[in-house]
Amino acid sequence: MQFPQPYTLQQIAQILDTKFVGKSDFKITGMNEIHVINPGEIVFVDHPKYYDKALNSKASVILINKEVDCPEGKALLISEDPFRDFNKLTDYFKRFQKADHNISDSAQIGDDTVIQPQVFIGHHVKIGKNCLIHPNVCIYDGVEIGDNVIIHAGVVIGADAFYYKNRQTYHDKLKSGGSVVIEDGVELGANTTIDKGVSANTIIKKGTKIDNQVQIGHDTIVGERCIIAAQVGIAGCVVVEDEATIWGQVGIASGLTIGKKSTILATSGISKDCEPGKTYFGSPAADVRKKYRELASVSRLPEVLSKLKKLI
Amino acid sequence: MQFPQPYTLQQIAQILDTKFVGKSDFKITGMNEIHVINPGEIVFVDHPKYYDKALNSKASVILINKEVDCPEGKALLISEDPFRDFNKLTDYFKRFQKADHNISDSAQIGDDTVIQPQVFIGHHVKIGKNCLIHPNVCIYDGVEIGDNVIIHAGVVIGADAFYYKNRQTYHDKLKSGGSVVIEDGVELGANTTIDKGVSANTIIKKGTKIDNQVQIGHDTIVGERCIIAAQVGIAGCVVVEDEATIWGQVGIASGLTIGKKSTILATSGISKDCEPGKTYFGSPAADVRKKYRELASVSRLPEVLSKLKKLI
Amino acid sequence: MQFPQPYTLQQIAQILDTKFVGKSDFKITGMNEIHVINPGEIVFVDHPKYYDKALNSKASVILINKEVDCPEGKALLISEDPFRDFNKLTDYFKRFQKADHNISDSAQIGDDTVIQPQVFIGHHVKIGKNCLIHPNVCIYDGVEIGDNVIIHAGVVIGADAFYYKNRQTYHDKLKSGGSVVIEDGVELGANTTIDKGVSANTIIKKGTKIDNQVQIGHDTIVGERCIIAAQVGIAGCVVVEDEATIWGQVGIASGLTIGKKSTILATSGISKDCEPGKTYFGSPAADVRKKYRELASVSRLPEVLSKLKKLI
Repeated sequence: MQFPQPYTLQQIAQILDTKFVGKSDFKITGMNEIHVINPGEIVFVDHPKYYDKALNSKASVILINKEVDCPEGKALLISEDPFRDFNKLTDYFKRFQKADHNISDSAQIGDDTVIQPQVFIGHHVKIGKNCLIHPNVCIYDGVEIGDNVIIHAGVVIGADAFYYKNRQTYHDKLKSGGSVVIEDGVELGANTTIDKGVSANTIIKKGTKIDNQVQIGHDTIVGERCIIAAQVGIAGCVVVEDEATIWGQVGIASGLTIGKKSTILATSGISKDCEPGKTYFGSPAADVRKKYRELASVSRLPEVLSKLKKLI
Repeated sequence: MQFPQPYTLQQIAQILDTKFVGKSDFKITGMNEIHVINPGEIVFVDHPKYYDKALNSKASVILINKEVDCPEGKALLISEDPFRDFNKLTDYFKRFQKADHNISDSAQIGDDTVIQPQVFIGHHVKIGKNCLIHPNVCIYDGVEIGDNVIIHAGVVIGADAFYYKNRQTYHDKLKSGGSVVIEDGVELGANTTIDKGVSANTIIKKGTKIDNQVQIGHDTIVGERCIIAAQVGIAGCVVVEDEATIWGQVGIASGLTIGKKSTILATSGISKDCEPGKTYFGSPAADVRKKYRELASVSRLPEVLSKLKKLI
Repeated sequence: MQFPQPYTLQQIAQILDTKFVGKSDFKITGMNEIHVINPGEIVFVDHPKYYDKALNSKASVILINKEVDCPEGKALLISEDPFRDFNKLTDYFKRFQKADHNISDSAQIGDDTVIQPQVFIGHHVKIGKNCLIHPNVCIYDGVEIGDNVIIHAGVVIGADAFYYKNRQTYHDKLKSGGSVVIEDGVELGANTTIDKGVSANTIIKKGTKIDNQVQIGHDTIVGERCIIAAQVGIAGCVVVEDEATIWGQVGIASGLTIGKKSTILATSGISKDCEPGKTYFGSPAADVRKKYRELASVSRLPEVLSKLKKLI
């Protein structure tokens, strides 16, 4: 999430009412997720386990709950509650704006794009040329859609990340300041949902085709020319590389990488990274040949156990 | 489902055109499901297998297809077809009313609640304060929503229970006279669906967070501060106790209890009650350690079987 | 997909700018999928592996990428790219028409049918008598719905088939010229999606009840009085025979037949035909008794392997 213009470290510290370590005129351009962060941006960390990762990332500013040594050329914002203060920044730069009608006046819509009735298009949405958006689609504020995109009825693009911090007595919501980018030539099936990123963007790259009732979580990046069949669920912060094929009802856990041109067979549950070019099956999934050998063995197991009775 | 005011046994018998056993001025306050029924209410039973359960429940009036001995202090309605007559009562007290526009004039909406465009709000719906309801949400008649609730686009609250009686030549629909109650601080993800109860309420308790494309069946009760990830399906009449965590694509069969602070790992299929505090995995699911031991054994099985060849 | 009136072979060849083999005044009535094709109709085939199947089907005209011997009484359209030219025909006869408002003037709606607010009904849709269509339903152009049908909120009927040809650098979309037919007495749960056929119709037959968030693919035929529970996914070109019962979250791969009165237990993944009257479980699924024996054996496996240690 980019700020509208660069802010200084001192300005951000004032907004948050926090101490800071670093030059007061240090320039900050935005806030982001650690796996895609760029110089100039803020990341937050509130658990000692992840301090090193945050401090050694490309982030220029670390919003942190301990006054650690500041790495060369970086800055720290010292907060008793970085989660709360990251939310405060999101709120400061991207406050929710109520909609007055179906299609915001601030939305940009390209030539020859057809918007069917009952489509909701939020503030500052950009839609390219020659798209077809079917009825009852909901596009939240700030989403960007390329050219030649087809979106079927009931699709929801840009709902909030499902991300909470477990406080003593309640789940504290991490606000979503990121957005969704749908590139050229993508097709999205009916009632599919794509969440916005927390502070990065959820991205569906060129030419990827997604079937009905697919769920794609926050900050996930789906590569070019992928095929994703119906009812697949992909959690947050996943990277699906180009030309992967994911068949129906597959589930993919958060943070994983699905390799280029890999194939995941229907109903599989993915709990580890998938290597490029390979085919996976099962829940938890494994290489399909290994899995089929296991299934063949299990199929013989009742008979084998009855034969073994006298031996053991 | 409460009647607008108490009816006498005789009045109900007249509506249904049935015989009754008990005092004609016996007061009846409503109808309900057997697992949550209260004194003063009617339950129906049409199979001898369940007679005892119904007669010994807290129900004051049993709508039944055989003239059995009436328990002390209770009453019977004798019907040749209790299913049909339960429907007749639902219809009598809660006839479907067509909507004339998006937001019913009889809906009550609290202060500082934002309703985005294209939201449908049925008759007699109550919504609390400081809620945010995104576009294309549909809230059927009679649903009650607390304060500080966030509902994402495409959510459907209060569709009919999926409940049919298999007649000779068709499936006979059990009408849904119950409703849905969403308590304070709940968040519902995009395109999630929550069915109304048959004669009780489907309830989502305080502070529970539900992700996108989750399905929650009729008369199910989800406790406080639960986490339910995307594409989970929970059947009817389930009780999920407080602070349970249910990961993506889990399925839970009808009538089960999911214990307090239990965790169900992604893609599991639950066919038995889950104990409090434990972690479950697999389909059918078992304790996660037991399941992992089984998976490790299966992984070795092809090699073991090839070694066993000479022995058996 | 029927043409508005019969066309001659020569006329179709002119539209496509292709050579043809056969009598120039040969009458063509439409185009169709091979598993349901009728005399008078065109099928396309672009892989030698499927030539025989296409040439020996009931199709009268084969759109093909090689000048093979033409079977007696049939005709050929010779195209360098039958996929592209099949699309060209679909486009010629069924060009997408933008909607100007929620309910097309060309839609036919029967007596006593209730259409709740915010329902989209496309061009040339037919809806029978005494139906109830809840809010935010989207019915694409040309869909036909019988009498006494209940459609819950958020249902999408008639989105495009998920069907692409993998070209060198992109996925080429096969256009959907078919439609959806929903017969009398069907009920569709909230947010369920039913895709249109490619050139045939997707059909849900009399009295079938479908729960929430079910996905039914292109050209699939679901028989009479079936029960399909929540979050089931049925791929394209499946035949579900009468009175089948499919429990929650089941997935069924494309092209399969699910036998009459068969039962598929929850969370199963079906990769082979299911026989009539039998019960299936597991992913991949098998006869439920076989599967339960396997599960019982696997449950004992860790102990068995530890006892075997000294033997092998």
